Amino acid sequence: MTETSYWHPFAQMSAVKNDTVTIVRGEGRTVWDAEGNSYLDSLAGLWYCNVGLGRTEIADVARQQAIDLAAFQTFDVFTTPNTELFASRIADYLPFPDGKIFFSAGGGSEAVDTAAKLARLYWSVVEQPSKKMIISRTRAYHGMNAYGTSLAGLPANLAGLGPMVESVAQVPWNDAEALRTKITELGAENVAAFFCEPIIGAGGVLHPPKGYLPEIEKICRENDVLLVVDEVVSAFGRGGDWFSAGRYGIQPDMITMAKGLTSGYAPLGAVAIAPRVSEVFWKDGSTAMFRHGYTYSGHAMATAVGNANLDILEKESLVDRVAEYESVMASHLAPLADHPLVDEVRAGVGLLGAVNIDPKVKEANPAVLAKLVREARKRGVITRNLGDVALQVSPAFTITDEELAKVANTIHESLEVVSRESDFVGP
Amino acid sequence: MTETSYWHPFAQMSAVKNDTVTIVRGEGRTVWDAEGNSYLDSLAGLWYCNVGLGRTEIADVARQQAIDLAAFQTFDVFTTPNTELFASRIADYLPFPDGKIFFSAGGGSEAVDTAAKLARLYWSVVEQPSKKMIISRTRAYHGMNAYGTSLAGLPANLAGLGPMVESVAQVPWNDAEALRTKITELGAENVAAFFCEPIIGAGGVLHPPKGYLPEIEKICRENDVLLVVDEVVSAFGRGGDWFSAGRYGIQPDMITMAKGLTSGYAPLGAVAIAPRVSEVFWKDGSTAMFRHGYTYSGHAMATAVGNANLDILEKESLVDRVAEYESVMASHLAPLADHPLVDEVRAGVGLLGAVNIDPKVKEANPAVLAKLVREARKRGVITRNLGDVALQVSPAFTITDEELAKVANTIHESLEVVSRESDFVGP
Ligand SMILES: Cc1ncc(COP(=O)(O)O)c(C=O)c1O
Ligand SMILES: Cc1ncc(COP(=O)(O)O)c(C=O)c1O
Repeated sequence: MTETSYWHPFAQMSAVKNDTVTIVRGEGRTVWDAEGNSYLDSLAGLWYCNVGLGRTEIADVARQQAIDLAAFQTFDVFTTPNTELFASRIADYLPFPDGKIFFSAGGGSEAVDTAAKLARLYWSVVEQPSKKMIISRTRAYHGMNAYGTSLAGLPANLAGLGPMVESVAQVPWNDAEALRTKITELGAENVAAFFCEPIIGAGGVLHPPKGYLPEIEKICRENDVLLVVDEVVSAFGRGGDWFSAGRYGIQPDMITMAKGLTSGYAPLGAVAIAPRVSEVFWKDGSTAMFRHGYTYSGHAMATAVGNANLDILEKESLVDRVAEYESVMASHLAPLADHPLVDEVRAGVGLLGAVNIDPKVKEANPAVLAKLVREARKRGVITRNLGDVALQVSPAFTITDEELAKVANTIHESLEVVSRESDFVGP
Repeated sequence: MTETSYWHPFAQMSAVKNDTVTIVRGEGRTVWDAEGNSYLDSLAGLWYCNVGLGRTEIADVARQQAIDLAAFQTFDVFTTPNTELFASRIADYLPFPDGKIFFSAGGGSEAVDTAAKLARLYWSVVEQPSKKMIISRTRAYHGMNAYGTSLAGLPANLAGLGPMVESVAQVPWNDAEALRTKITELGAENVAAFFCEPIIGAGGVLHPPKGYLPEIEKICRENDVLLVVDEVVSAFGRGGDWFSAGRYGIQPDMITMAKGLTSGYAPLGAVAIAPRVSEVFWKDGSTAMFRHGYTYSGHAMATAVGNANLDILEKESLVDRVAEYESVMASHLAPLADHPLVDEVRAGVGLLGAVNIDPKVKEANPAVLAKLVREARKRGVITRNLGDVALQVSPAFTITDEELAKVANTIHESLEVVSRESDFVGP
């Protein structure tokens, strides 16, 4: 066979080119590979397939929309019915009134670059053009376009690239006072925005310290800094509520989202923009214009899929189900904290969980996470290495009690097997 | 009615909020609005809908794939059959052997940021980390993420944003010597790549001066600078060949593409990477890794749609049809150059055309392009203001002779009507 032509994301291709797993089919929380092996996907893809795989009702909508009008530009005056409808339905769930929705094409990375550009442009329009710096947090993940990469708090994701957008700064993820200090240091007149995930996702499922989010909201207000909450993972139910900003009682100026918007049935991302920012562009007589957008912004089929996905979330009360199952999942995972390889289990807010490997174990056994992922896969459960610190658990909202038990048991077995390997260096 | 929640791309929302056109259906080259008016779309969306609207065969594939497996992550070891197949089919059409394909999720903007990051990382991996600058051209459009925006050669698209990625430089679009001079000025040891569209699209359909592309290829080789050709518009037939790099006889190190890959039936973009760059990552034993990717990179449904779109291009020999129709379109548009409002018609290479408005007319009548677009729309033809200099014509590959005649006649009528308006300032 000739070598594959496909360059996988986040992959060491010298190894992966000879070691791929081809997934051919999925239903609910289960996927099958080309050899007929089945796997329980504890990740819901990459925390996006919230309604589960194989939803015929979404497929039917996608087909009909592709026949009627797969896509039409929504630049300038044009729009489509599903674009409008989905924007207004998203706006209805926002934790602030009168939000405007800007759609990105690909997902979260474009939503982040959109929000970052809009934050800077906003300050130009209101004649404070010196406000350009954007502050983010350690452990943060804001996608892979140049702005998002520059805001990354995971150093590996910037290695070898050098600075791209240079007007960025960073603060420790769990320290609100550090934000205040950083703004003072930079001068509030130079700071455009603060970006943060309400619950840090790719950095390891890190819950905000108690009181952290309201405190940073206050600091942003006091310093006239825009607060941009990155809910690419958490929005549309994953965090146990429609928006985690709502759950934690904060009112951001912008919210980025993707993933759960469509459950991955079509690529789509969005930025919700609060009136403070939108009004200077939208008010009668304003000549301000956001010269920005993607060919597929507001894509007819993707937004039709978004509406069909939202129909399912609403009809099956799946966001309520997350609120109910977050503690069920937490109690299944909690006992893993007693295993000698594990130092902490983080779960209990939404359907996001992390089984953190003891850093000393990880240091003595650099490949431990890769091995655990492989052992779990052999046993029919897909999990992954999260931020090089933990195993990720983030299932579809339809996950059952038995399936959660299977995930926890399989991780336990994998921990046992790996710690018994001959080359394993014990804690 | 409450105000819309949808923030249109590239739109002045203070005006557009009260003046939208809702497109509800399309077939072939025709679309219908919510009031039942029909329009001949001379743009193919935004030069993407190459096979035309309403293709049931693509809709059926999309539905079946959404039922079987709408999406699965392709990070690390995972892949899907359509991801693999589409990557290898793209590779077969490239103007260089053994290309690797990295898929972006949203389209061209993510493909550009991907190529820019990979160019920088490549030089780090081969231990020339000082090579970081990327050079682009005036009039260039490379999408809207932070890297692409920073490389923009259309000043309006950077206004109010300030510098984002700062390690960029620019040269006049039509001057190969200027590239050589700029590289010398910056020091070749500091230059990572040169980005260029083979035919400039959004900047106004500007053909490369004779010999320009082979000359810049030579300059890049001599200075050890990567050549990245942005074929988001031109790839997959729009430029009259599968790739315009092939048509102009150059072998780039990377090619970005989107639009025609799927004809817009699903968002998708890609970067094709030549062996020089890929090998340092792919060769046995290499530990180099491109830590980059999008949740929906290699999306199962989007790549299935890509394959279905390519089936149509192949079965209906549509790329040959473009090669045949490029001169047909040019002869329909050419007579418009005689109109007093027009100073030049650019067409004849692929299905891309621009009717350039005399700059003096534009200066005396700043709204002339907007008016022309509106008049054409009233008469049932959709065109648009291209780079504030021209009207764009870029129809589906299935456009007929009669339809091209209608486009040309309607533009002519619109020129007549606008030049007769009472407030029009003549040339
Ligand atoms: C918080 C956050 N922001 C942005 C992104 C980027 O989203 P995408 O991969 O869809 O571009 C992600 C992806 O995981 C994310 O977790
Ligand atoms: C040459 C070129 N590059 C990049 C892009 C950006 O593509 P997208 O809008 O799909 O992100 C475009 C879009 O028109 C383009 O013409």
